[in-house]
Amino acid sequence: MKIGIIGATGYGGAEITRIIRSHPHVGECILYSSSDEGVPYHQSYPHLVKLTNQILKPIEIEQIADEIDFLFMAAPPGVSSRLTPQLDSYDIPVIDLSGDLRIKDPSVYESWYKREPAPEHVLEKAVYGLSELHREEIKTAKYIANPGCFPTAVLLGLAPLVKNGLIGESFVIVDAKTGVSGAGRKASMGTHFSEINDNFKIYKVNEHQHTPEIEQAAMRWNPAFKPITFSTHLAPMTRGIMATIYTELKESLSGDELQRFFSDFYQDSYFVRVRESGQFPATKEVYGSNFCDIGVALDERTNRVTIVSVIDNLMKGAAGQAVQNFNIMNGWSETAGLDFTPIYP
Amino acid sequence: MKIGIIGATGYGGAEITRIIRSHPHVGECILYSSSDEGVPYHQSYPHLVKLTNQILKPIEIEQIADEIDFLFMAAPPGVSSRLTPQLDSYDIPVIDLSGDLRIKDPSVYESWYKREPAPEHVLEKAVYGLSELHREEIKTAKYIANPGCFPTAVLLGLAPLVKNGLIGESFVIVDAKTGVSGAGRKASMGTHFSEINDNFKIYKVNEHQHTPEIEQAAMRWNPAFKPITFSTHLAPMTRGIMATIYTELKESLSGDELQRFFSDFYQDSYFVRVRESGQFPATKEVYGSNFCDIGVALDERTNRVTIVSVIDNLMKGAAGQAVQNFNIMNGWSETAGLDFTPIYP
Amino acid sequence: MKIGIIGATGYGGAEITRIIRSHPHVGECILYSSSDEGVPYHQSYPHLVKLTNQILKPIEIEQIADEIDFLFMAAPPGVSSRLTPQLDSYDIPVIDLSGDLRIKDPSVYESWYKREPAPEHVLEKAVYGLSELHREEIKTAKYIANPGCFPTAVLLGLAPLVKNGLIGESFVIVDAKTGVSGAGRKASMGTHFSEINDNFKIYKVNEHQHTPEIEQAAMRWNPAFKPITFSTHLAPMTRGIMATIYTELKESLSGDELQRFFSDFYQDSYFVRVRESGQFPATKEVYGSNFCDIGVALDERTNRVTIVSVIDNLMKGAAGQAVQNFNIMNGWSETAGLDFTPIYP
Amino acid sequence: MKIGIIGATGYGGAEITRIIRSHPHVGECILYSSSDEGVPYHQSYPHLVKLTNQILKPIEIEQIADEIDFLFMAAPPGVSSRLTPQLDSYDIPVIDLSGDLRIKDPSVYESWYKREPAPEHVLEKAVYGLSELHREEIKTAKYIANPGCFPTAVLLGLAPLVKNGLIGESFVIVDAKTGVSGAGRKASMGTHFSEINDNFKIYKVNEHQHTPEIEQAAMRWNPAFKPITFSTHLAPMTRGIMATIYTELKESLSGDELQRFFSDFYQDSYFVRVRESGQFPATKEVYGSNFCDIGVALDERTNRVTIVSVIDNLMKGAAGQAVQNFNIMNGWSETAGLDFTPIYP
Repeated sequence: MKIGIIGATGYGGAEITRIIRSHPHVGECILYSSSDEGVPYHQSYPHLVKLTNQILKPIEIEQIADEIDFLFMAAPPGVSSRLTPQLDSYDIPVIDLSGDLRIKDPSVYESWYKREPAPEHVLEKAVYGLSELHREEIKTAKYIANPGCFPTAVLLGLAPLVKNGLIGESFVIVDAKTGVSGAGRKASMGTHFSEINDNFKIYKVNEHQHTPEIEQAAMRWNPAFKPITFSTHLAPMTRGIMATIYTELKESLSGDELQRFFSDFYQDSYFVRVRESGQFPATKEVYGSNFCDIGVALDERTNRVTIVSVIDNLMKGAAGQAVQNFNIMNGWSETAGLDFTPIYP
Repeated sequence: MKIGIIGATGYGGAEITRIIRSHPHVGECILYSSSDEGVPYHQSYPHLVKLTNQILKPIEIEQIADEIDFLFMAAPPGVSSRLTPQLDSYDIPVIDLSGDLRIKDPSVYESWYKREPAPEHVLEKAVYGLSELHREEIKTAKYIANPGCFPTAVLLGLAPLVKNGLIGESFVIVDAKTGVSGAGRKASMGTHFSEINDNFKIYKVNEHQHTPEIEQAAMRWNPAFKPITFSTHLAPMTRGIMATIYTELKESLSGDELQRFFSDFYQDSYFVRVRESGQFPATKEVYGSNFCDIGVALDERTNRVTIVSVIDNLMKGAAGQAVQNFNIMNGWSETAGLDFTPIYP
Repeated sequence: MKIGIIGATGYGGAEITRIIRSHPHVGECILYSSSDEGVPYHQSYPHLVKLTNQILKPIEIEQIADEIDFLFMAAPPGVSSRLTPQLDSYDIPVIDLSGDLRIKDPSVYESWYKREPAPEHVLEKAVYGLSELHREEIKTAKYIANPGCFPTAVLLGLAPLVKNGLIGESFVIVDAKTGVSGAGRKASMGTHFSEINDNFKIYKVNEHQHTPEIEQAAMRWNPAFKPITFSTHLAPMTRGIMATIYTELKESLSGDELQRFFSDFYQDSYFVRVRESGQFPATKEVYGSNFCDIGVALDERTNRVTIVSVIDNLMKGAAGQAVQNFNIMNGWSETAGLDFTPIYP
Repeated sequence: MKIGIIGATGYGGAEITRIIRSHPHVGECILYSSSDEGVPYHQSYPHLVKLTNQILKPIEIEQIADEIDFLFMAAPPGVSSRLTPQLDSYDIPVIDLSGDLRIKDPSVYESWYKREPAPEHVLEKAVYGLSELHREEIKTAKYIANPGCFPTAVLLGLAPLVKNGLIGESFVIVDAKTGVSGAGRKASMGTHFSEINDNFKIYKVNEHQHTPEIEQAAMRWNPAFKPITFSTHLAPMTRGIMATIYTELKESLSGDELQRFFSDFYQDSYFVRVRESGQFPATKEVYGSNFCDIGVALDERTNRVTIVSVIDNLMKGAAGQAVQNFNIMNGWSETAGLDFTPIYP
C-alpha cells in the first residue's frame, strides 16, 4: 500500500512518518507540503538523516489521487475544509488530523474556531475516529475526523461513566495539562523556550475549541450530558497530556465497583491501560507510545470521582490514533506498526 | 535585631537567609542545624560563597534563647512539635514553617499527618499566619503557624468568595500544580530529575495533608463551607504553584461584579495582585517574589467560576510569607526586605 | 537622576528595569520602544503589573535627549550604529548593550557581523566596558560598549593568565554553553521550546561573532595572544552561561600557585568569586545576580589548565554589568542597586 | 533464545527490556535483581504495565546458568567483578555494561575507580565491545566489556583520525555533556531535580573514570596517542550525550578531505551517521535510537579540528550497543531489534 501525508513538515506529519517507517503493511509513503516542496525531508528533520530520502512534493490533488491509496492530512486548520471537497470524487480514504471535520454543526464550528466550516456534505461523511469507541463506523468511513488531543484523553476517561449512564446531569470539570508540542512547530511567543521553561501557564479558560468536540461526543453517548467546565494548561515539557476530570455519580458506587466499571469497559482495548486501584499514571509512562493510561478514585468524604487520563499528545492524541484508525479501516490488527514500548525515562 | 533559623540547610531556610540578607531591620542571623553543625553554610549552598561566613550551630534551646530575639523554624515535620514546648517559657516569638502548629484539632492532625500532634497548650497559642487575612491576630502572637504552600494559594483565591458568603455549600474543586522544590532538598525517587523531567505527575488524590488546613481556615470564615476535592500535581519545574479552583456561586453575579469582588477585597494588600478581567497569571510572573497573583473568570455557559492563583512556593508559600509575618509582628512595613521584583524570564 | 532605556521590550531591557527599580540613585526610568509605543509596559511583561505604570514611548532622539540624563541602549544589532551618531552632540552618556560598538576595526565587524559598522568617530569614543578590567577608562567614557555575554565569562576567566603573561602563544580553546534567553525574546525555530527542551545543541562552530571581541581584548592585554577555537552550545535552560576554557601555561606552575594568581587578581572585585581549589561553579549559583564565579584546575597528567567561568547572561552578561558600569561612571559604589543574592534553587 | 538481565531495575536494565520486547530472535527474557526479588517488574516501572508480567528473581548463579542462554549484566560497579568468576565455568556469553571489565591493567582500574579490580583471568577474556571498531573480536568473545557512554561517543568521534594516524602526539581535549539518566536511578543530591533543573554543572575535571578507557582504546589503535584533557558536564535533560572534541592534525588536510575521512570510515556502519559538511548533530536527533551522529569541522584560522559526536546514553551508550554486540555475537543482522527511529521532538 502507498500512502501520502499532507502537511508532513509539522510534528503530526513527522510522527506519522516515524510510525509508518516500521509499519508492516505500508510499502511507500509520499510526503506533501505547501511550503517546502523540492526540499529533502531530512533537512527539516535531521533525526531522519539516512532513514528517509523523501523530497517534499507540492500539494496537487489530481496527482496525489493518482499516486497513493490512502491519505493522511496533518495540516493546519482550514486546509482540510478546502481540500476535502476536491478529494470527494476519488476513491481514497482520508484521515484528517485537524479539527475541520470534527464538529457536525457548522455554526458551532464557526463560533469556537472563528473560521469557515467545511461543506456539510463532507461533514456528513466524516466519522469521529475515537478508535476504542467507534470501531464499527470507522471501518467503512470515507473521512475520519481524527480526534483532538484533549478530547481523546478526556473522552476515554469519561466514556465508562457516560456510556453506562453513571453521570447524568452531573457537573463535569476538566483540568487539562499539555506539553508544548501540541502547539505545533510554528515559532511564536507561546512556544518560546524562555517564556515556558520553569513556568506553568493556564491558556484557555472555558474557551478552548476542543470543548464542543468533547460535548458532542459525550452527548451522543448520553443526551443528558451537560456542558463542561474546561481549562487547559501549558506544562514545561515537550510531549504528554494529563486530563484530571472531576465529577459526581448519579448513583452510589463503592470504589471497587467504580474501578471495575473501568477495567471491564476497556478489557478488549489494548491501548487503554486502566491502572490498579490507588495507582495513577504519569505522562512519561506513555511517552512515545499509543497508550492511554487511566486511574480513577472515589473520594468518600465528598462522594466525588477523580479520573486521571494520560496520553502522548503526538501519538494517541494525533498520529498514533490516526494509524490505529488506518489499521481498523484496512482490517489489520489495531496494533500493526504501533506496538511501541513507552520510552522511560 | 538578632534572629535565628532552625533548619537552615533546607530550601525554606536558605530562602529566609536570602531575604534576611537585605532586610533593613535585622542585624544578625544565626543558623542552626541538627545535621551539619560546625560546617560553613556556603558549603551546603555555594551560591552564598562570599555572602555569608556563618558556621552552622547545633540546636541547643537554652543557648538559642540566650543569643537571639526572634526564631524561624524551617525544619521537617515533627521538629516543632518537639521543640516548641521547650521554647514556651522564653520570651521569643516563633514563626514555624512546618505543618505542626497549623491544625487546631490534634486528632485531625494525626489522621492526615500520621504522626503525633504538638501539645494542645502550644496549639492554642498558635496563630494561623495567612498574612492578608489575619493581620490583627498575627501582631501579638507567640507562635505563628506559617501556612502551607498550597493553602496559601488556595485560600487567597477563595477568600473573597468565602468571606463574602458567595459560596455556601457549593462544591469546591482544587486542582493544584507545584514545582519540585516544595518537596524539599532531601533526595528521593520523587525528586529524581530523570523521573520528573519532561513528565507530569499527579501525586496525592484527595489525600494531601494540606486538605484539613484549607478546610479549617475556610470553615472559620464561613461555617457552611464544605469539604473540598483536592488533587496535587508535580510539574517539571523548580519553583511555583498554580491552584486552579472550580466552584459555583450561591447567587448570580456578572463577570464584572465577580472581578470587582476580588479587586476590592485585595486593594490594600500589596502582595496580592488581582489581574484584569480576562487575564490569568503564570507561575513565573511571581518567581522569586512574595506576590500572589490571581485571575478569575465566570463561565456563562455553565455558571461556574474558575479562579487561578499563583505563588512562588518558597516565597509567599514559605519564607516570604514568614518574613511578611515577621514584619507584621514587629510593626514594620509589610514589605520590609521583601519588595523583590519577580525574575523574568 | 533620570535614565532612559531604548529597547525596553527585549529581555535586556526588562532586566535593566528590574535592577533599576531598587537602585538607590535613580529617580525615574523612561522606556522607549520602536514597536510598542503607547502600550503599557506591563502588558509585555505581566510580572511587572502593579510595579510599573510606564507607557512605552517612541524613539525620538531630540525628546530623549531633553528628558533624560543617562541612556541605556538594549536594542537589536544595527540600532546603535544608526542612533549613536545622532546622540553624539548631546551631553548624555550612553551604555550600549549591543555588539555595534565593541569591535574597533570596522572591517572585522563587517566580516563577523555581516552588517554595516558604526561610524569610526563613534567607535573611537567607545570604551569596552569589562568593568573589572577597565574601570579607569569607563569612568570618563561617552559611550560604553557593554561586553557580550560570552566574552564577559571568557575574558574574566582568561584575564589573570593573559595579563600576567602566563599564556603566550598557547592554544586557547573555549567550549561555551548558554541558556536560551541569550537569544532574546523574538520567536524563532532556534528558541522553540519543543526543539530545545531535553536537547543539547552546538550552534556556532568557530563562527560566533563574539570571537573577535574576545581576541581583541586579550590581544590588547598581551599582543602575543593567538586566535582561539570557540564553540557555542545551547543548553535547555533559560539563564546562565558556562565557559569551559582549556589552555596550557608558558611556564610551569603548581596548582596552588595557579589558584593564587586567580584569587589575588580578583581580590578587590566584589562581583568575581574565585572558588577554592577543587571547587567549580554551576550556573545556577549566580542566577539572578551579577556575580562571575570562577574555578580553575591544573591537570598534572597533561600539564594543561581548565578554567570554568559562569555568569547569568542577562546580569553580568548584559544588564547587570551595564548597571555596574553606570555606577562606575557616576562615581557610586560598584554594587549600588546590584547586590542581589543569587536565587537558589 | 532465552536471555537474562542482572540488574534489571536500573535504567540500563529497563532499556534492554524495552529493546528486547521487540527483538525478533529472543523468546524469553528473565529479570534478576539483588534488591526487589519477588516484586513484579512493572511495579518499579509502571510504563511496562500490561507489557510484562515478569516477577524479579534473585541472583543465584547456578539457577541462572541453568535457565538462560545469554546474560546481560547491568549492575552497579563491583558486581561484575564479583560474579563473573562464578560464571566462568558455564558456557554462557556475558555482556557486562559496567566498567568492571573494561580496563586491562588492574592497577589503572584501581586508581581511577577506587575499588578492587576483577580477577586477571576474567579481564583477559574480556573484549572491549565498541561495536563498529571491534566486530571480529566481539563475535567470539566470552565476555564483552560494553563501553561506557562517554567513551562510546568520544572514540567513535576520534577513530577516523586516530586509526588513520592523522593525530599523533597532538593534544586531544574532550568537553563532554550528559543528561542525568547516565547517573542511574539511585536518588542523590546529584540527581535531585531542584539542583539540576535550569542549571548547568561541570562535575569531574580530569578525574572521570572513563578517561583511562578512552586512552586505552586510542593507544591500542595508535601507540603515539597522548593523555587527554577530559571534562564532564551535567546538562538539565534526561537522555543524551554530546562530546565536543578539539584536536589538531599532524598533517594538513582540507575541510573536504577531513569530511571524507569520516564518511568513508563509517560507510558500512549503519548506526554511525556522519553529517554533511557544515552540519552538526543535536542530542535529541538520536533520542531513543542506537545512532551515533557525528559532525566535523576544520577551522582554517587556527588549523584545529572540532568533532561533535552525539548519542543517546542509554542506547548507543549502554543498552543499545549491548544488544548490537549481542547481535554480532549471534551472527544476526547488527540492526535486529534495534532499528528505532529517533523520537522527535
